[in-house]
Amino acid sequence: MGRVTERRRVIRIRDGAVSSRPDTLVVEEPLEIRLNGKSLAITMRTPGDDFALAAGFLVSEGVLARADELANIVYCAGATSGGAPGPDGEQAAGGNSYNVVDVRLAAGVTIPDLTLERNFYTTSSCGLCGKASLDAVRTTARWSLDAAAEPALRMAPETLAGLPDRLRAAQRVFDRTGGLHAAALFTADGELLDVREDVGRHNAVDKVVGRALQDGRLPLSSCVLMVSGRASFELAQKAVMAGIPVLAAVSAPSSLAVDLAVESGLTLVGFLRGKSMNVYAGAHRLALDSTAAAG
Amino acid sequence: MGRVTERRRVIRIRDGAVSSRPDTLVVEEPLEIRLNGKSLAITMRTPGDDFALAAGFLVSEGVLARADELANIVYCAGATSGGAPGPDGEQAAGGNSYNVVDVRLAAGVTIPDLTLERNFYTTSSCGLCGKASLDAVRTTARWSLDAAAEPALRMAPETLAGLPDRLRAAQRVFDRTGGLHAAALFTADGELLDVREDVGRHNAVDKVVGRALQDGRLPLSSCVLMVSGRASFELAQKAVMAGIPVLAAVSAPSSLAVDLAVESGLTLVGFLRGKSMNVYAGAHRLALDSTAAAG
Repeated sequence: MGRVTERRRVIRIRDGAVSSRPDTLVVEEPLEIRLNGKSLAITMRTPGDDFALAAGFLVSEGVLARADELANIVYCAGATSGGAPGPDGEQAAGGNSYNVVDVRLAAGVTIPDLTLERNFYTTSSCGLCGKASLDAVRTTARWSLDAAAEPALRMAPETLAGLPDRLRAAQRVFDRTGGLHAAALFTADGELLDVREDVGRHNAVDKVVGRALQDGRLPLSSCVLMVSGRASFELAQKAVMAGIPVLAAVSAPSSLAVDLAVESGLTLVGFLRGKSMNVYAGAHRLALDSTAAAG
Repeated sequence: MGRVTERRRVIRIRDGAVSSRPDTLVVEEPLEIRLNGKSLAITMRTPGDDFALAAGFLVSEGVLARADELANIVYCAGATSGGAPGPDGEQAAGGNSYNVVDVRLAAGVTIPDLTLERNFYTTSSCGLCGKASLDAVRTTARWSLDAAAEPALRMAPETLAGLPDRLRAAQRVFDRTGGLHAAALFTADGELLDVREDVGRHNAVDKVVGRALQDGRLPLSSCVLMVSGRASFELAQKAVMAGIPVLAAVSAPSSLAVDLAVESGLTLVGFLRGKSMNVYAGAHRLALDSTAAAG
């Protein structure tokens, strides 16, 4: 449980020189997420923060939005049985591979109609298309990013420009393996609140969001979500579902991520590198006037 | 259909200067893959090469291994119906969003027991763990990477070192959007055979493998698969299932990808940059002696 890295022997070739030496790899293992005992999804993830990952996954799916909707999360003991869970956070006994977690909802919380596939909705009138994906987020979102519904978060571009270096500095495992995605929450002043790493980009975001849910901090209406890679539709969806008003990515967004940002009121920043960035949606949250004067 | 990029207005900030200009984004849209009319999986992909993507996905899942097992692939017309497919490659009429494809198997080809989730196997005796994922590949692989079963592919490290530049040069859409993964097939001499781009790393590999299946070129026992990012378990699995003996990645592999490479006989090269690389498994396919002498 919780092995984040492993050592393996590797043959290194550097400018024609061949050597054999130990190398540190990021661990990848499957995690099955169950909801009230029923298998819901399986993801390839880096072990650690598994309960947060499961909780965050369920925020993205529209199942959870507040800490009091969550009864507890347990590792399932044994092989294919779903039973014998221990108290939250306690390790179950006997041959547990710690790769199956069960999320129990509080009494009275209803489970929406979930497909086994994540983020995909095949029953829309237009068949299957990007619009169906956008519709699904709008109908399941528990928080609003409307200006009227949230405290007015406003950021200086200079503050945004400082986030990638802070994220990179906080990535402990990346330094050893070069093989991890990272997601971090910052305040509008650029203060780092939390950072999680995972072999899967979506898992890193789920871990950050799930931890915030467990701590009773949803909606994250005063936060910026910063990711180490690209901004796909899925990551934009996760920001919206957690009530995060700003998503900033080191690399490019996709068309559907921008569509979702425009429709939901999410501020979407891409190619955030050095003092440069592209703002794809929600520019009203950025203090651009003073900056423009400098240009 | 086939829109790979879209133009959107973006606010650019460069060293304090703010401007508004059009930007090119990579398109991301859902694709539903059906097998003999039954929904099997949905993936977020960049439109284009959809039939190849579906075919390659089914190679990875152990359903397809030879061209003659495939009857045809069609876009499904209309919304939620599964019917009225036209002939292979022909566009179906009437409101088709081109986001649902149906793969029809040749008569007599049996469909293995597939779960809805990709690459995940929950019925192993050890519960759910990495070993179960490895077991699943071994039991479903249709080709062997054993030295005895394949022609002896042998590569010079210098040839491998030249692949990233060739891959990058072949990435047409990346140049415009900065937002795509790429996968390419090369010969052991470094000749580029095929390259595909997609917003999803696994989709890019599926497109390359699926095209090869359609052309009757599986197993790809004389090829190197080069990917623009990391080498996850899933990508190593796709190489093994297509009979590709060498997987080379620009970035880091995961622990489970290395485990699979060792177990299946796959040569796995990571951090392939400039004249440097790490060989994690299958070094017998690399001509290291002469290189070592130079070190």
